[in-house]
Amino acid sequence: MMGMEASASLLRLPKYLAYLKIRQRQGVTSISSTKIAEDLRQSPVQVRKDLALASSAGRPKTGYPMDTLIADLERFLGYHNTNDAFLIGAGHLGRALLSYQAFGEYGVSILAAFDTDKSLHGTEVDGKPVLPVTKLPDLARRMRVQIGILAVPETEAQSMCDLMTSCGIRAIWNFTVQHLEIPEGVIVRDENLAASFAILSKQLSVTIENETLKGGRES
Amino acid sequence: MMGMEASASLLRLPKYLAYLKIRQRQGVTSISSTKIAEDLRQSPVQVRKDLALASSAGRPKTGYPMDTLIADLERFLGYHNTNDAFLIGAGHLGRALLSYQAFGEYGVSILAAFDTDKSLHGTEVDGKPVLPVTKLPDLARRMRVQIGILAVPETEAQSMCDLMTSCGIRAIWNFTVQHLEIPEGVIVRDENLAASFAILSKQLSVTIENETLKGGRES
Repeated sequence: MMGMEASASLLRLPKYLAYLKIRQRQGVTSISSTKIAEDLRQSPVQVRKDLALASSAGRPKTGYPMDTLIADLERFLGYHNTNDAFLIGAGHLGRALLSYQAFGEYGVSILAAFDTDKSLHGTEVDGKPVLPVTKLPDLARRMRVQIGILAVPETEAQSMCDLMTSCGIRAIWNFTVQHLEIPEGVIVRDENLAASFAILSKQLSVTIENETLKGGRES
Repeated sequence: MMGMEASASLLRLPKYLAYLKIRQRQGVTSISSTKIAEDLRQSPVQVRKDLALASSAGRPKTGYPMDTLIADLERFLGYHNTNDAFLIGAGHLGRALLSYQAFGEYGVSILAAFDTDKSLHGTEVDGKPVLPVTKLPDLARRMRVQIGILAVPETEAQSMCDLMTSCGIRAIWNFTVQHLEIPEGVIVRDENLAASFAILSKQLSVTIENETLKGGRES
């Protein structure tokens, strides 16, 4: 169990992280808890205790290597959450994805769905809530969800994509055939099912042509 | 409009095709309408007229090149139908696929769905009927559908795959994570959505790790 004291430490960690990122951008490559304490006006003992929750990279003389400390803090704070996704669009396809069992086997999961259709709000699919799209920004930030799944009609694809990237979503799994315009640093994975079907169809027709040329598939 | 006569020709074409395939396997590489007429006890004029519906490859002295004539007949009879598919499993995912608009843009389409769930029989999704699985063999043969889409629970995947291949389906688009055992000559395209999601998740985590090493994504 985490005591009151550790919980207070936890609340201070994002402050350290913001501070460290500024220092890192200034070119600082390692930093001591004494220096951090001085800049943030806290006791060095407190700082060491707080940081020890997330990182064991501190060394007596040199302090913390900056990159490692930042990475440790981000990981600890869940900034590296790359397994959870929000789904936009709870139509046929969205609902199919919400109830797709195999995601768990790969350690990935959809936490909730968002839709503009009011009649769906408050409903659940396979235990996952369907919420108003207006709730997306706040929840994405609070839950640090960085993957968005886009399963909306083509006409809404770009606007919903924009909404997602504006609230910190950095990877988009795109089930629409719409080409998405995205800010730098955002990853898109296009899942074009129609193209996939067309490839299979083409493979089959090539196989059939080859068989005809070879004189039938029977030996 | 196709007259009565042409329609009678049409009914004879499969007989020619069966005969030609036997000859082809015997090593015959070209054949005249006279020879076909002789073997099938029809008039040469009739044979020429019938074949002219499907092929323009006949030459006065040499007759028809065997491969070309067979390919022409198969194409004409729709044996090369590689654009239409039947769907097995009309659950969430199946229904999503039935109403997926973009297939048309790629010239492929799902004609009907089959399910073991009686409560779905007679219903439609986006104008496409949901039928009993028992109707699959007859319809697949009659409509010459050679592509099957598998969107059933894992436990039914192999048995439904077996059913499909037993009735002439030669290409399977597999949405289950089940590895399918298939007869030789059948093509399988695995559409593992869970693996696709996992790849995106991994790409994101690699990006984040790289950014951390480089000192944040801000410039």
